[in-house]
Amino acid sequence: MDDIISPVLVVDEEKCRRNIRRMINKAQHAGVDFRPHFKTHQSQAIGRWFRELGVEKIAVSSMQMADYFAHDQWQDIMVAFPVNVREMKAINRLASTINLGILLADPHVLDSLSDGLTQKVDFYVKIDVGTHRTGIDAEDIAGIEQLVEKATHNPNLRFKGFVAHAGHTYQTNSLNDVHKVFRKGSKLLAGITRHFKSRFPDIIASWGDTPTCSLESEFPGIDEIRPGNFVFYDLMQYHLASCDQDQIAMVVAAPVVAKHKERNEIVIYGGAVHLSKDYIILNDTDKVYGEVVRFNEKGWESFSNPIYVNRLSQEHGIFNCPDEHWEVFKPGDLLGIIPVHSCLTADLLKTYYNIREAKFL
Amino acid sequence: MDDIISPVLVVDEEKCRRNIRRMINKAQHAGVDFRPHFKTHQSQAIGRWFRELGVEKIAVSSMQMADYFAHDQWQDIMVAFPVNVREMKAINRLASTINLGILLADPHVLDSLSDGLTQKVDFYVKIDVGTHRTGIDAEDIAGIEQLVEKATHNPNLRFKGFVAHAGHTYQTNSLNDVHKVFRKGSKLLAGITRHFKSRFPDIIASWGDTPTCSLESEFPGIDEIRPGNFVFYDLMQYHLASCDQDQIAMVVAAPVVAKHKERNEIVIYGGAVHLSKDYIILNDTDKVYGEVVRFNEKGWESFSNPIYVNRLSQEHGIFNCPDEHWEVFKPGDLLGIIPVHSCLTADLLKTYYNIREAKFL
Repeated sequence: MDDIISPVLVVDEEKCRRNIRRMINKAQHAGVDFRPHFKTHQSQAIGRWFRELGVEKIAVSSMQMADYFAHDQWQDIMVAFPVNVREMKAINRLASTINLGILLADPHVLDSLSDGLTQKVDFYVKIDVGTHRTGIDAEDIAGIEQLVEKATHNPNLRFKGFVAHAGHTYQTNSLNDVHKVFRKGSKLLAGITRHFKSRFPDIIASWGDTPTCSLESEFPGIDEIRPGNFVFYDLMQYHLASCDQDQIAMVVAAPVVAKHKERNEIVIYGGAVHLSKDYIILNDTDKVYGEVVRFNEKGWESFSNPIYVNRLSQEHGIFNCPDEHWEVFKPGDLLGIIPVHSCLTADLLKTYYNIREAKFL
Repeated sequence: MDDIISPVLVVDEEKCRRNIRRMINKAQHAGVDFRPHFKTHQSQAIGRWFRELGVEKIAVSSMQMADYFAHDQWQDIMVAFPVNVREMKAINRLASTINLGILLADPHVLDSLSDGLTQKVDFYVKIDVGTHRTGIDAEDIAGIEQLVEKATHNPNLRFKGFVAHAGHTYQTNSLNDVHKVFRKGSKLLAGITRHFKSRFPDIIASWGDTPTCSLESEFPGIDEIRPGNFVFYDLMQYHLASCDQDQIAMVVAAPVVAKHKERNEIVIYGGAVHLSKDYIILNDTDKVYGEVVRFNEKGWESFSNPIYVNRLSQEHGIFNCPDEHWEVFKPGDLLGIIPVHSCLTADLLKTYYNIREAKFL
């Protein structure tokens, strides 16, 4: 790994492909379509691993990302974020070359779309099933009716169905809670979709979020799943029990730059601009910004008593190193950090090193 | 501002230049040199505003950033981060064209430097004056002696002095506490520098951090100051009392994408990948990720009762909008967000729109 001189993403291709295959198999067994969310890896090279396994449609979280993947021959892309009408030119440009899907979360955008859209786009209505991030409230059938009614009058808007994202699974504390969120939310989404199916027989119910897609095996009333994070997983998902430790497929390689024995602390080149400031709380009080692992011939391994990064500034990461491991790392060595939130970390670093092939992607 | 279609940095050049001038004047009056830290703006264009006012030397936080500014004719650059010996090639390459300064925080890097350095570099010893991030403990005179002794035996290492960064000012709660941190830390740094001056008469004591450089007017025993954040300031600095509201020189422009009256919430295109997940706590419990402002002819203005972004996901930002302002913003409109931590926000977005000239930098 001598080619790695500063913080980069290190991906284990085999684990990654296993995560992808597992989710494809799950979707097939459950009889649902699979539209993976590419906002996590944001990489054309990793996108091709999905394509080789038969994936043909994807979700992304910005028009820019849609454009990036359209340049690698993806033809069916949903931008799973409320449509931003300031980007009308980009929307028209993209929609002239691919099947572009947009999300409607607020009826007030329809006038702008009606003025600005010159190309046909797929549209999905975003439903709030309890996360309260965005979307029309699942109970507000009148509001949904009005939006669908108005939108379907625009000949450039092709009604494709309803989408929901159960982001509130990230606030749960048990598998049972995740399951409850899924049961309640998916029932709401399926009910709304059924309600409109008599008039629009081809619409679908599309369901997102990695915790439920990882933990559920059946998706009654759902036609499509859109998990993203599962491609890598991360420390947050591990502590939510969405994955096992050996499913985590990406770490950050970070050089050691200083050791301070008087306080048993090791300083790494790997800070907020590499890992992001996202954290989890362990033991009720400790903020954790990542888990320290060491590289080995097979990839990487955790310490038997996990070691965590507990302070971050712009470029520095700091962890407390127990005496028995003090000699493992010296300045200039590379260690690995399992990120708390792989989506944000990948967005920051962008460059991948494929540890199986010992080269950059 | 029709050219702005997605989140970008909006800079008020006049406020920015005023911040720069104020710090230059302060340094001149106090009789200290000024080496601004460019890790905050990371922009060649903004760097030139400093140069026009006579600034000739800078600090950055990575070798990559040093390289970027070296390409815009900066000839004296200190990389204010413990030297990463994996970057030896880049160090030698840069040091062959500019005056490159590196930081030594751990004597164990000296063997690698001795093997790898082929060019002359300036070196500074990083002193820990209480932040406990990195550096040799200020009380450990023997340790400092050893490091200086060994380093000065390397003919490629030119001893320039000692640096400290009082990062613990960010944990203070009052002006008096900031002052205490400065008094104590600067006395330690000045003492160490004095101790070595008989043998190395040209060495300096270099002092960083925006809170103390903003709040102090005299810097006894200090030869150089290295603040960075002051070029823009931000919400964190404002709440630390390092600046007034009208000194904040940068906001993020973010499009409104949805409004949800049932919960009085407005969703913006502006999330963790634009603002960063850094936050401050207000009223003891509320996590705040930025302050919402509106653009006007002169720049931007806060609401009389401040409105804060209180939730962030990857691309979404959400704030609770009081009834009296509900009609101010509609989907497609641009609003401004004062970031919590301008360094991380600028690092994420990189693109600047100069609101005074109504064009991108």
